[in-house]
Amino acid sequence: MKHYLTQDPWRIVEDGFHRDYNEITESVMSLGNGRLGGRGSFEEKFSGKTLQGNYVAGVYYPDKTRVGWWKNGYPEYFAKVLNAANWIGIDVDIEYEALDLAQCEVRDFRRVLNMQEGYLEREFVAVLKSGKEVRVNAKRFCSIVDDEAGAIRYAITPLNFDAKITVTPYVDGGIRNRDANYDETFWDEVRKETAYGEAYIQLRTRKTGFHVVTGMCVEIEQDGVRIDYQSQPIKYEKYVANRISLDCRRGQETVVYKYAVNLSSLNMPSDSLMREAHTAIQTISRKGFDRMLVEQQQAWADKWKTNDITIDGDVAAQQGIRFNIFQLNQTYTGEDERLNIGPKGFTGEKYGGSTYWDTEAYCLPFYLSTADQKVARNLLIYRHKQLGKAIENAQKLGFRAGAALYPMVTMNGEECHNEWEITFEEIHRNGAIAYAIYDYVRYTGDEQYLADYGLEVLIAISRFWSQRVNWSKAKNQYVMLGVTGPNEYENNVNNNWYTNYIAAWTLRYTLEAVEKVKAIAPDRYAELIDRIHFREEKETATARHIIDHMHYPFDPERQVFLQQSDFLDKDLMPVSDIPKGQRPLNQHWSWDRILRSCFIKQADVLQGLYFFEDEFDTDTLKRNFDFYEPMTVHESSLSPCVHSIQASKLGMKEKAYEMYLRTARLDLDDYNNDTEDGCHITSMAGTWLAVVKGFGGMRISHDGQLQLAPYCPENWQALSFKIRFRGNLLAVTATQADVTVQNFSTQPITLQVNGQPLTIAGNQSQTV
Amino acid sequence: MKHYLTQDPWRIVEDGFHRDYNEITESVMSLGNGRLGGRGSFEEKFSGKTLQGNYVAGVYYPDKTRVGWWKNGYPEYFAKVLNAANWIGIDVDIEYEALDLAQCEVRDFRRVLNMQEGYLEREFVAVLKSGKEVRVNAKRFCSIVDDEAGAIRYAITPLNFDAKITVTPYVDGGIRNRDANYDETFWDEVRKETAYGEAYIQLRTRKTGFHVVTGMCVEIEQDGVRIDYQSQPIKYEKYVANRISLDCRRGQETVVYKYAVNLSSLNMPSDSLMREAHTAIQTISRKGFDRMLVEQQQAWADKWKTNDITIDGDVAAQQGIRFNIFQLNQTYTGEDERLNIGPKGFTGEKYGGSTYWDTEAYCLPFYLSTADQKVARNLLIYRHKQLGKAIENAQKLGFRAGAALYPMVTMNGEECHNEWEITFEEIHRNGAIAYAIYDYVRYTGDEQYLADYGLEVLIAISRFWSQRVNWSKAKNQYVMLGVTGPNEYENNVNNNWYTNYIAAWTLRYTLEAVEKVKAIAPDRYAELIDRIHFREEKETATARHIIDHMHYPFDPERQVFLQQSDFLDKDLMPVSDIPKGQRPLNQHWSWDRILRSCFIKQADVLQGLYFFEDEFDTDTLKRNFDFYEPMTVHESSLSPCVHSIQASKLGMKEKAYEMYLRTARLDLDDYNNDTEDGCHITSMAGTWLAVVKGFGGMRISHDGQLQLAPYCPENWQALSFKIRFRGNLLAVTATQADVTVQNFSTQPITLQVNGQPLTIAGNQSQTV
Repeated sequence: MKHYLTQDPWRIVEDGFHRDYNEITESVMSLGNGRLGGRGSFEEKFSGKTLQGNYVAGVYYPDKTRVGWWKNGYPEYFAKVLNAANWIGIDVDIEYEALDLAQCEVRDFRRVLNMQEGYLEREFVAVLKSGKEVRVNAKRFCSIVDDEAGAIRYAITPLNFDAKITVTPYVDGGIRNRDANYDETFWDEVRKETAYGEAYIQLRTRKTGFHVVTGMCVEIEQDGVRIDYQSQPIKYEKYVANRISLDCRRGQETVVYKYAVNLSSLNMPSDSLMREAHTAIQTISRKGFDRMLVEQQQAWADKWKTNDITIDGDVAAQQGIRFNIFQLNQTYTGEDERLNIGPKGFTGEKYGGSTYWDTEAYCLPFYLSTADQKVARNLLIYRHKQLGKAIENAQKLGFRAGAALYPMVTMNGEECHNEWEITFEEIHRNGAIAYAIYDYVRYTGDEQYLADYGLEVLIAISRFWSQRVNWSKAKNQYVMLGVTGPNEYENNVNNNWYTNYIAAWTLRYTLEAVEKVKAIAPDRYAELIDRIHFREEKETATARHIIDHMHYPFDPERQVFLQQSDFLDKDLMPVSDIPKGQRPLNQHWSWDRILRSCFIKQADVLQGLYFFEDEFDTDTLKRNFDFYEPMTVHESSLSPCVHSIQASKLGMKEKAYEMYLRTARLDLDDYNNDTEDGCHITSMAGTWLAVVKGFGGMRISHDGQLQLAPYCPENWQALSFKIRFRGNLLAVTATQADVTVQNFSTQPITLQVNGQPLTIAGNQSQTV
Repeated sequence: MKHYLTQDPWRIVEDGFHRDYNEITESVMSLGNGRLGGRGSFEEKFSGKTLQGNYVAGVYYPDKTRVGWWKNGYPEYFAKVLNAANWIGIDVDIEYEALDLAQCEVRDFRRVLNMQEGYLEREFVAVLKSGKEVRVNAKRFCSIVDDEAGAIRYAITPLNFDAKITVTPYVDGGIRNRDANYDETFWDEVRKETAYGEAYIQLRTRKTGFHVVTGMCVEIEQDGVRIDYQSQPIKYEKYVANRISLDCRRGQETVVYKYAVNLSSLNMPSDSLMREAHTAIQTISRKGFDRMLVEQQQAWADKWKTNDITIDGDVAAQQGIRFNIFQLNQTYTGEDERLNIGPKGFTGEKYGGSTYWDTEAYCLPFYLSTADQKVARNLLIYRHKQLGKAIENAQKLGFRAGAALYPMVTMNGEECHNEWEITFEEIHRNGAIAYAIYDYVRYTGDEQYLADYGLEVLIAISRFWSQRVNWSKAKNQYVMLGVTGPNEYENNVNNNWYTNYIAAWTLRYTLEAVEKVKAIAPDRYAELIDRIHFREEKETATARHIIDHMHYPFDPERQVFLQQSDFLDKDLMPVSDIPKGQRPLNQHWSWDRILRSCFIKQADVLQGLYFFEDEFDTDTLKRNFDFYEPMTVHESSLSPCVHSIQASKLGMKEKAYEMYLRTARLDLDDYNNDTEDGCHITSMAGTWLAVVKGFGGMRISHDGQLQLAPYCPENWQALSFKIRFRGNLLAVTATQADVTVQNFSTQPITLQVNGQPLTIAGNQSQTV
């Protein structure tokens, strides 16, 4: 746990330069706009501890799979998130001294991530070895309006000297991934161009052949006036720059404006990238930094209008929740249905791939409630587009007849993770993808989606489950052998309760969806079943037989579901019995010891009871929660939020708050000692869930009604969150005394609060 | 299956050059002497398909472990078997043409591995592009008398021309491993020397820092007379040679004798290697090729005297069994207690490490019965020497108080395999190491071994088992969760019957050994328990409690042991139900599918019933054999031999023969389509077991009596094998009519044949 960042409701503030924590600060202060982004590194040279990282969404490198003994069905590669050309760099030389905060005295340092307006600002005074003092103020953002662009305002003021200052804004494609093997490089240069104050470079990724053009142009202002300058173009391998020498007077502010664009061949032919980059640079430089920033501020204000959560009386909590919301919005905007929510977003290069089950299980509800419906819909469409590859993936594992297994990790629909117990066995992900369809339709009422896309995916997933189970003569039931559940601290188990449950549930929901689509879109249904050879009678009969005869491991003594068949053979003990200094377990215990222990990374059964809570009574939830929570170590960042929501539901407010705290400031406080690698983006949605579904008690009933049961945690004065629901925008505020729901829409809405129906007219609020 | 090699009782013969199979032939025709060896490649240049491989026992490279997600407790490296300097090379240039069988017409080609006398011979006529015809006869061996030396006689005869022929005998250290990453090299040059007809190079392995000097000297004979020659020394990087130009007349035989030595820093200080190599070269060249070969022939004759198995009426079977015995003797001689039996011996570089549980479970009985007692003893001492590292290994996995887990794969006692389901979970290997002590003592009667070494190892292994089990409240018994049994087609299972059984057996045998050592060596016992802090009362009580309360999964309906707790949930079906074209499963099915199928790589339960057959009645064996054999795919080369032995015991002679055939000619017929990588050395001991314990019915009773129950498979006329037993050498011959046992020793021996006692006087034989 680290507490060097200043608490502030709207900003993340580093006061004074914390050199040793610089990589953590870089992660936390990352900027992104859904299409590009990067870490909060310095513009000028820095020879101290830093992880430079700039990323372009959808661009990756296939790193060859390497294992001890090859197993049939492994993917050929692991999709590595690629560090792309550095477009933020501006080298500064004051006479013959490079400005480098690792090599000089730093005063009045302050780095601020302004979450309200979406920019990063940094100011400091550097005292060079020569004694020269210079003040710098740097402001940077990735525009969410011009989403291929970034802009920098870099202001330099000599404090105690007149001198020639050379600034060299550059684009550097000679970057490496920290996780590269043997210092491999992943980019080849295609071409580069320089012009007066401009520079462009086109790079191509090895093997995958993505092209990216990164371009920049530079303007200089002195005394508040734009000036002409002499620019010396520089070209090295994979590097373009303009070197600009400026006469600077003591006390005079020289401002370097650097405009940059990143255009990728994902969006246009690679041979037009260079031309388009020129055009884009013209457009944004004409618009200018100040105008761009105003637009950025407005766009962020719009986002906050529907996204914000306020917590009165607890600045740390307020800052934490806004940080989570801010990063989620920076990572994914829903503009591009080919993109998804990488586990590190634009904050680091660790973990490959962009898409995990996190998207469906945790992130979707956030975007459903805070963004336009099309954003959540695009997340679903993403998987529909990849259905063909999911079917191929299942075929590789021996499944037939249109069965689909979605990948555990992917960039483009192909599996790109290569550990057998995950890749081949953590198949519950397939269920989450089915569940997301249900979740979306329930929230939006958009049943047409089932006809257009959803049913096709559901049938393919159901086919997988039908083939994946086998009949146990010993049990006279269907069993599912050799799986890994969401609790990755058990591998290759039999009858993981969660997986068996979500499999049977998928079959049930598919049967329901078949009936629905037949009713609302009979022609589409006919077309679909013909195209995918759906033998309705046979396949639905099989599904019903499995639904009726699925095995669910259960402990009759404790009346709890068992997370797998042999769970009761374990030596059951609470987490509190783990000797001090042995946590996190995965850094202290060998894998076999973790596997045979009772300790749980993320509680399977509780995850199931969270998804399917309507199907179980509260006593059942309570018994299972009381059984599993004490054995859960929460070493998955996705774990505490579900426990927090369930503790809220069970009235265990202290536990709910404790679990909330574990997720809300995970990265800000470097809770797991790994924020330097990047932020835990997808689990941030879990934090939001803990507030809105936990403290807010938000649910959608089967008949599509919004339900709330808000309360304000004890040490807060008030909690307020906003949600979009079927055309309405609501603000829900809970104080220690009452709950107020405000309807910002013109249309009235009927909802339930604490089980009581409540109708709120347009633009009105009601307090209960 | 390939049948291009000629069947012959004593030789492996390739008649005519089979270019496409050259790498298979190279594997099969490998030479070794326990200390060095290599594949049966050509001396002269060959630009066709070839895997050059020369190996020096005990020299390895630590290849860095690379996994998707790091797991605590993984070893840092994987020990790679290193291709070492090529000492066999002799380039031949005839005027301006290189002799290269890939580039000329080849006539009368014949390559012969003479197993009786221990050498490789090759002859051919090459027709060069110029039309020149040359006859070559090459003979090579690795001396088992001078075990650092190899010798080559390379005779060249121009058939239709007079010409200058240049021969360039060389030592080349610029070799690579085929399995290197990114063409990495593993050797650095330290120094090199050349002299008239001599050349030496000292190389050092990267990271591990082993030094090896490879030296050679050359003699030339024409018209049967040694001649002086002009030698031009050549030195390139990691390469030394002598280029020798010779005037050769049509029909005149020119013979190049090349003597080579390989000395390693395993055996002497690295700075004296070069000097010692000079001395060794002098010694062997003075002895000369012919004398060396005579000694080699005599030494092999001595080996065959105690090793040979003869099969009358089936040349293929005869050749097969001799090939297995020959390769085992080439791989391990027992001279050096630091060495062990690598899975590929000196025949290839695949698989890392030199030591697997194969040594104890399969190879030990072969050496017990065919070699001096010290050979088997050295195999045991090897593990005793590595006990400290086995204790460290267990500590890494969280075990305490002197518990030992021997590595799955090792070179030097450290674990060097890095897949969790193997490394951390295939712990039954520990049991095999305990069993080997029992097996050795039972066979030899050498109880003193227990006091000197055995008990210490047994206690350390027993401590591991005592900590590895846990008490299941649900079962009211001890369980062992999360293991992989010998059947590697199930991973991370609970209560693998075999592992549970061998664990409890180890505890029992340890208690027995404690009593034995207390009785025969009380002082040694006192010293030992003090040194290793053995708390006799407490530890033996724990052991007894585990022995009495171990869980053994069992099917009461079928009355068979279950190979793991959930086995009956599988969809049970015979191997014959696997669709055509899907075998071997590991090349056709994904790993998860294999894991959840009922199909067995190597039958766990049967392996246990083989080790502990005295503890079960024949009906039990029969029931389990009938249950498991039909589900066993035998995709481990170690599998069929046990089934063959048990089928023999059960009187299922056809099955026994079928299983025998699967192992006996595995490499000669390239049964698994992988002999090009090298031979399956350790499984060759299984073939021997199938003959001696299967057809021969050899057992040792609890009271140390030799038991036989020989029969001759139907399509053979006679089977005869030799065994050493407690100072006696016996030949056992079974025909279709009777069984004869011949006692070659002067002392009488009393044994049982088919359950009847039989005493045979010295140098007598008896027929029953």
